[in-house]
Amino acid sequence: MRALVFDAYGTLFDVLSVTSLCERLFPGSGTPLAVMWRNKQLQYSLLRSMMDRYADFWQVTQDALAYSARALQLELTAEERVQLMDAYRTLHAFADVKPGLQQLKSKGLRLAILSNGAPQMLESATRSAGIADLLDAVISVDEVRVFKPSPRVYGLATERLEMAANEIGFVSSNSWDVAGAASTGLTAFWIQRAAAEPPEELGYQAALVVHAITDLPAHI
Amino acid sequence: MRALVFDAYGTLFDVLSVTSLCERLFPGSGTPLAVMWRNKQLQYSLLRSMMDRYADFWQVTQDALAYSARALQLELTAEERVQLMDAYRTLHAFADVKPGLQQLKSKGLRLAILSNGAPQMLESATRSAGIADLLDAVISVDEVRVFKPSPRVYGLATERLEMAANEIGFVSSNSWDVAGAASTGLTAFWIQRAAAEPPEELGYQAALVVHAITDLPAHI
Repeated sequence: MRALVFDAYGTLFDVLSVTSLCERLFPGSGTPLAVMWRNKQLQYSLLRSMMDRYADFWQVTQDALAYSARALQLELTAEERVQLMDAYRTLHAFADVKPGLQQLKSKGLRLAILSNGAPQMLESATRSAGIADLLDAVISVDEVRVFKPSPRVYGLATERLEMAANEIGFVSSNSWDVAGAASTGLTAFWIQRAAAEPPEELGYQAALVVHAITDLPAHI
Repeated sequence: MRALVFDAYGTLFDVLSVTSLCERLFPGSGTPLAVMWRNKQLQYSLLRSMMDRYADFWQVTQDALAYSARALQLELTAEERVQLMDAYRTLHAFADVKPGLQQLKSKGLRLAILSNGAPQMLESATRSAGIADLLDAVISVDEVRVFKPSPRVYGLATERLEMAANEIGFVSSNSWDVAGAASTGLTAFWIQRAAAEPPEELGYQAALVVHAITDLPAHI
């Protein structure tokens, strides 16, 4: 294994770290809003891909926020929308991310991100999390204009790193993303961040399940 | 307009009519199980399509049930699984379905189903709901081996009915399905079955929003 490629949202960056801002703006509705926002964001990425009507992840994230606020009957002002979208540029990284990447880097592995995120979103997020220097490549689905789990997306990893699929490990906390990567021949590692979460039933399994990125170096 | 093509699950057949059986088998967990089962079923149909790993809707429905039971920490026996899957073959039709279809039929419209469902599932469901005789065609995505909202699916309507897109109205209670159909040039009608549900933010809108199939004849 010569490189590890990481999913970004949910794996490196805590998408639910927007919950506290949601709660401040809409007391009592912070968690339902943050959770629905995330679910709709993923659903819209799939639906738009299926419809052949790609819009980048920034737009999809904005559309998902608009829907979720409406579904929860929250009045979202233009200013609140901007505040919430801004929070998405600087999501918190999980505590295991920086030390985990440093340990893997020191083992001589090349490290990259392969994400649904639009290039500018990924740039802000990696900079704000202080991990930009640890990454050899930040690859966005934007160049193929389709979202995960399309095989064309995982194909970007081998293409951009100029390595064979069996030299690349793919790491995600999203079990469906693990299945998607595994189905294209990448070795897939599942970071099971929620203890009780079962793996998705999609016909492809992780080669290894761990609970934090810092658990990975011992296995590679 | 010469024909109306209906989505099946959620539009004609009440997918949540399995709730009472879920509740009988798992007291206190009937609604969470039925809701998660439905959501996972849709999510798996999208994910498998995106992965180019089609499995028919029967398999997807079974996989979604297995995941949901596990996620809710319910012990699902083989016998309970069979019982729940059987319930999916004979879902209740909504009360407006049969009278609505009869009224539309008497206006000289050709009526059809275009559904994610596997052919045998659709056959049992239409027979059990007593609407088989009202339908000129029952079209399953199974022949193109990809789920909605792929444009290839909506293309089946024009192909099989041998009509132009602007002669066909597509009717669904699933707002994302409405967006998918509208994006391919079909005139799309949204049956908004849950009063407070906002339309999905996918860039395509319904030509008309009604609350029951019996509201349609007056508009067509």
